[in-house]
Amino acid sequence: MSDTPRFLAACRGERLDRPPLWLMRQAGRYMPEYQKVREAAGSFMNLCRTPDLCVEVTMQPIKRFGFDAAILFSDILVPAEAMGAEVEFVTGEGPKIRNPFRTEADLERFHSPDPREAAPYVFEAIRGIREVLGSETPLIGFVGAPFTLMCYMVEGGGSKNFEHTKELVLGRPELADKLIDLITTYSIEHAVAEIEAGAQAIQLFDTWAELLSPPAWRRFCLAPANRFFREVRARTSDAVPRIYFSKGGGAQLADLGEIESEVLSIDWRLDIGRAREALPGRVLQGNLDPLNLYAGPEATKRRTNEILAQTNGQQHVFNLGHGILPKTPHESVDALVEAVHNFRAE
Amino acid sequence: MSDTPRFLAACRGERLDRPPLWLMRQAGRYMPEYQKVREAAGSFMNLCRTPDLCVEVTMQPIKRFGFDAAILFSDILVPAEAMGAEVEFVTGEGPKIRNPFRTEADLERFHSPDPREAAPYVFEAIRGIREVLGSETPLIGFVGAPFTLMCYMVEGGGSKNFEHTKELVLGRPELADKLIDLITTYSIEHAVAEIEAGAQAIQLFDTWAELLSPPAWRRFCLAPANRFFREVRARTSDAVPRIYFSKGGGAQLADLGEIESEVLSIDWRLDIGRAREALPGRVLQGNLDPLNLYAGPEATKRRTNEILAQTNGQQHVFNLGHGILPKTPHESVDALVEAVHNFRAE
Repeated sequence: MSDTPRFLAACRGERLDRPPLWLMRQAGRYMPEYQKVREAAGSFMNLCRTPDLCVEVTMQPIKRFGFDAAILFSDILVPAEAMGAEVEFVTGEGPKIRNPFRTEADLERFHSPDPREAAPYVFEAIRGIREVLGSETPLIGFVGAPFTLMCYMVEGGGSKNFEHTKELVLGRPELADKLIDLITTYSIEHAVAEIEAGAQAIQLFDTWAELLSPPAWRRFCLAPANRFFREVRARTSDAVPRIYFSKGGGAQLADLGEIESEVLSIDWRLDIGRAREALPGRVLQGNLDPLNLYAGPEATKRRTNEILAQTNGQQHVFNLGHGILPKTPHESVDALVEAVHNFRAE
Repeated sequence: MSDTPRFLAACRGERLDRPPLWLMRQAGRYMPEYQKVREAAGSFMNLCRTPDLCVEVTMQPIKRFGFDAAILFSDILVPAEAMGAEVEFVTGEGPKIRNPFRTEADLERFHSPDPREAAPYVFEAIRGIREVLGSETPLIGFVGAPFTLMCYMVEGGGSKNFEHTKELVLGRPELADKLIDLITTYSIEHAVAEIEAGAQAIQLFDTWAELLSPPAWRRFCLAPANRFFREVRARTSDAVPRIYFSKGGGAQLADLGEIESEVLSIDWRLDIGRAREALPGRVLQGNLDPLNLYAGPEATKRRTNEILAQTNGQQHVFNLGHGILPKTPHESVDALVEAVHNFRAE
């Protein structure tokens, strides 16, 4: 075993006795200590904008569950706001953008500022987290993938069918290109600033990649993600692993190999053994169903062990297939942690 | 060209000059003439229960767009109601089941009656449709797939995460087996009765198949679907093609070949060329994104032609990748029909 932190060693494909473990959205509503800070902050966006509180909630799951990586507490709409979106969180309804992008003229309302000036609290939070985080626990930075961010900026919030976004990308693809280029430009700046402030890995969250048919996926997910990964790599250290998460990536499995990241994070619907076959040599992250934890500790342990047996814990960062959910019982998280910690590679 | 109707010839894999075309949910809210009948019926379930009105709305898209197959107008919750579910449609909220299945004791409340007595209007509608439908246009019958029906019966309606269903199938799989066996038993009876009344093909709609990880998919989607297909085939004519639709089937692409149906209907996220490679010799149905029609006639025609070029119209039933949506412009449907009708196989 090298003294490289387990998470970074796994991202580099090093042989390990057990895989590292962290959970998407691990600082979140399932933790009572998070709920307390969230209430004290007044609003969700206030929490995102207050570095001390971001440090506190980022550290909570590390202290409670001993995860092998921390992830910056922020929101994927922070970059949208920096670009000119008017973001608000309506309780029970999720994020809303009051000035969605719909026409060519809207290009004038969105821009790519210096993130250090537009969202300084993000980078202050990163510096604060690195100060308190042990050297064995790396900090992951993140941004929403360009297409996923575009979905929110065009739709103005979550949606069942994302009809405005679909109309834009399928009916006016040249205009969609302009918007996604702008988003990608800003996202690169934001990610570079996160890494400069101390983030040791970077994850792109392409939650809505599953909306698109293959040709649109290649144009609006694959191409912008690769531009992002290339430019971030050119401007930062080779030691910073890049992770691409797509929900629904199973439909594009044969093409996912073209994503230029060290790690591919897959959802729970895809068989990780088949993903390994289709993506030889690629480090995979995932892929326990977050709802599996609702079924209790025994069911969680059973499925965790199945996944571990499939990968033998190699070239594998253990994670969920999507973010952990608010009503997740802590006993199930404990069972997950125990199963991964007890695993020994053959 | 044989004088077999184009749709049935395609399901049998016969060589055709162009593929047949029909649309999932083709009798629906995007048609003003449907809206009129729907309003006159008072409630959605009233419409489902009135054979004359079912005949009328089933025929509307055939008359208006000349589709190559008709599909029985009914709802996937009609079998749930026949089994003992208390179904209501709340405007703006979709279907609700007031007495969802949650515990072992609930098994007593659900049963498998004779569909001809429990839902006679379905079979009367089928006989009525066959009387007015020309011989060149076959009638497709359908039921919801056992897992998808279970989702509604357990959850009590639509849901973001289907947490009750997940808890049941992952935490109490033996109880879930009992429920899904009962649903499968009734669904077989219902489908056999549809075919005996005059349905010339049968489609299983597994809309929520995409919720499950691979082991649960095999147990709760694949196995019940195959029991359904085998028993329906054993009790009806070999001339009745069987179609399996799954949303999100891309994640299970390598396993979809085990589904024992003549036709596999795939969603819009999967590349139909790759599906053809993975499922050699299988007739495929699909797979235009229903939202593509929102982007207008030109965008619809462009993508339709791409899909046609991939299959050369062989072993292919042209359809959407999911049901047509309420705000679909008729000009886009016209463009789709025209593109498929103008296509000539090489």
